[in-house]
Amino acid sequence: MGPHPAVADVRRVVREALADVEEGALVLAACSGGADSLALSAALAFVAPRMGLRAGVLTVDHRLQPGSAERAETVAGLARGMGLDPVEVLTVTVGTDGGPEAAAREARYAALAEAADRLQAPAVLLGHTRDDQAETVLLGLARGSGLRSLSGMAVRNGRWLRPFLHLPRATTVAACRALRLSPWDDPHNVDPRYTRVRVRRHVLPVLEKELGPGVAEALARTAGMAREDADALDQWAESAYRNCALSDIGGSVTLSTAEVEKLPDAVRRRVLRRAAIAAGAPPGALSAAHVLAVDRLVTRWHGQKAVDLPGGLSAVRRYGTLILAISPIP
Amino acid sequence: MGPHPAVADVRRVVREALADVEEGALVLAACSGGADSLALSAALAFVAPRMGLRAGVLTVDHRLQPGSAERAETVAGLARGMGLDPVEVLTVTVGTDGGPEAAAREARYAALAEAADRLQAPAVLLGHTRDDQAETVLLGLARGSGLRSLSGMAVRNGRWLRPFLHLPRATTVAACRALRLSPWDDPHNVDPRYTRVRVRRHVLPVLEKELGPGVAEALARTAGMAREDADALDQWAESAYRNCALSDIGGSVTLSTAEVEKLPDAVRRRVLRRAAIAAGAPPGALSAAHVLAVDRLVTRWHGQKAVDLPGGLSAVRRYGTLILAISPIP
Repeated sequence: MGPHPAVADVRRVVREALADVEEGALVLAACSGGADSLALSAALAFVAPRMGLRAGVLTVDHRLQPGSAERAETVAGLARGMGLDPVEVLTVTVGTDGGPEAAAREARYAALAEAADRLQAPAVLLGHTRDDQAETVLLGLARGSGLRSLSGMAVRNGRWLRPFLHLPRATTVAACRALRLSPWDDPHNVDPRYTRVRVRRHVLPVLEKELGPGVAEALARTAGMAREDADALDQWAESAYRNCALSDIGGSVTLSTAEVEKLPDAVRRRVLRRAAIAAGAPPGALSAAHVLAVDRLVTRWHGQKAVDLPGGLSAVRRYGTLILAISPIP
Repeated sequence: MGPHPAVADVRRVVREALADVEEGALVLAACSGGADSLALSAALAFVAPRMGLRAGVLTVDHRLQPGSAERAETVAGLARGMGLDPVEVLTVTVGTDGGPEAAAREARYAALAEAADRLQAPAVLLGHTRDDQAETVLLGLARGSGLRSLSGMAVRNGRWLRPFLHLPRATTVAACRALRLSPWDDPHNVDPRYTRVRVRRHVLPVLEKELGPGVAEALARTAGMAREDADALDQWAESAYRNCALSDIGGSVTLSTAEVEKLPDAVRRRVLRRAAIAAGAPPGALSAAHVLAVDRLVTRWHGQKAVDLPGGLSAVRRYGTLILAISPIP
């Protein structure tokens, strides 16, 4: 008798994700003890030795709840019980920048990256599922900040691999049950102060009820297409930028307005954003409204004065050129 | 004392929408008697004479409810009372193709277009608001069919103008109240058999509650950016198609696989879709799965057999070319 279908599914996608990893290399799974990453660790423990790979687990103690250290040790014990080695508990200090979710994420990824470097592991598997992807797309949509924010997470991004990104969360839960693994339910996952938790518990169920059960899949499919579309437009914008830039010296960029004007709206605004960042504008502070104001210097020119940009920059139009530089531009 | 702010808003956006219409021309508003289109008709009646334009109203009797003819006459009477002329009731027969919403929409637009042609009106104003746009984006998202379906409705598309597309529905309701106009609440607008009604009454309110009151605006902003992005990618795909097509004779297209291979994923799939349509595939029947199967002939070639496409077509790879034609391809 073969394995339970859910177990077969999680193993298959992990095997596919590892197809390109060099034999003998160490592959790590990030495991919180939840159903997704527990199923991931179990699948890795099964698959890796059969592919000639070594396999270990990293679990992060965020120190945000009493008893988190014991919890992390329990997860580490489960992983060791699966035959995974090395198994490490990474203790981090979570700051406050960007809110609690972003700060925890940043601390977690930094610790995982440091450990992967130290252990010389070329790949770190993450347990994100199709449901996580759907939530990410809805969060991006609610920001209204464009294609890149709709494109969610990547199946593969450098060392980070997400083999479960096309699997429903229910499959990981079923796999744990079939393997008699008891996942830990992080109380943060039901804390309504987190936007993602509200999306998971209130928004997605309503979408599924009113629009049909295929919504999570449709959102994940949208993410995949949005990522390809965003990549293609970035590629176009990069080559257009090189074509439009008359000079690009640290802190000062000069573009040909005649060349910029020829571009379609979507590419022109990406080129202008790219130019402002090249001139030194902090990407996080540069809004769509800033880019639009610069765009009007190109497409609705009626003698406007300089446009102020973050990072102490200005944009001015002069004799068929657009100059982005530290203000005031002489 | 100036007009109520909501009245000033609806007049301003109608004035802006009509800036390019030639003096003396007839502009029509489509009016159902609901708050959106009633505010639209009132704004048009105020603005048009001040801009040297003639202004009329079209109201469509879909004949789907008892009393619909009387209802349409009441709306026509209101419009005449505003000084609009001509005012016409267009009686249509709604079919069943594509479901009740799509069939009603198709009958309505056909009747409006016929009347605009007959009355030689270069512009027809439609009352869609930012909330309608948000609903359209959510419906597109639920289909998961990509960027174009996220781009919602256009502010301007040929003769169709949507001056309210950036205004919240609440503004049109407030404008009607300030002008002492009593909108008619179409019972279809609360009929839960319509997906759009469920989105309006159940999905958007939950999104606003859980993600914040700016959701409708964020969705509408997403639509605007998605439209620009989709236009740019279509432009790229069109020029790439011309570069890749070795021949394009009615019913048979031959592409150079070497040229197709060089394109980024998003553009390559648009080129292949474009090629299948040029070869005669019905666009509505051509799914993302079909395009992906053709794509694998290019990017994952291992001697596959012909891929069947709608419209009795096949795609085959032969000696560095991809042929899309009526099957069997000799």
